[in-house]
Amino acid sequence: MATNRERLATWHRAVFERDRGALLGLLAEDAVFHAPAYFKPRQGRDTVAFILENAIQVFENFTYHRELIDGDDWALEFSANIGEVRLKGIDLIRWNAAGQIVDFEVYVRPAKGLQALAEAMAARVAEKLTSA
Amino acid sequence: MATNRERLATWHRAVFERDRGALLGLLAEDAVFHAPAYFKPRQGRDTVAFILENAIQVFENFTYHRELIDGDDWALEFSANIGEVRLKGIDLIRWNAAGQIVDFEVYVRPAKGLQALAEAMAARVAEKLTSA
Repeated sequence: MATNRERLATWHRAVFERDRGALLGLLAEDAVFHAPAYFKPRQGRDTVAFILENAIQVFENFTYHRELIDGDDWALEFSANIGEVRLKGIDLIRWNAAGQIVDFEVYVRPAKGLQALAEAMAARVAEKLTSA
Repeated sequence: MATNRERLATWHRAVFERDRGALLGLLAEDAVFHAPAYFKPRQGRDTVAFILENAIQVFENFTYHRELIDGDDWALEFSANIGEVRLKGIDLIRWNAAGQIVDFEVYVRPAKGLQALAEAMAARVAEKLTSA
């Protein structure tokens, strides 16, 4: 099974090279996503992949900073901006025993950054759905 | 120097027993606090202690869940509510080589929880300042 170092390298490839195969390979079939702006979780590999792929594309200057790894629980600190609005965030990730992501929770601060992200995501997803 | 396990026990005492001495003893003199709702950091042991003590009191049913410890970087996942509003959060904490907290960043989701927290904190701090 992949070590944490290998998983992190694969995750970085999914994010920074927008490698869809890498992303899908990391997600468990029943993976759950928790958005920063609303409470209701979303479930399923394709749904979570769709959300993450769109998030990756709305963030500009996305950079990871501290990457905390404590066994199967990870907290990846990031910064980014949406237009002029700067924000910071955390990807709180839980892995299962098979080495797949089962839970992915995103936190964003400050409030202005969270609002900008939620608006950009809503606009992007609406555009995707209407052009599909 | 205190182990991570000992530091965590002291931190829990500061939070759950509202032990001011424990809290002050954990904070470095130049500790920096980053609030979930606004960007501007606040600095200094007394300032950070004041904010944390008030935060502890506005949260109801405050509970820690995953506590990620990766050397001097910690991410403590919590849940709480403010009145009827449920929220989740992360305390992202950095310790210095002397075993004191130098950086304390709080993230809260969802947006409704962040707003409820910001409003409750503003109301509480305003009350404290006018009654001082």
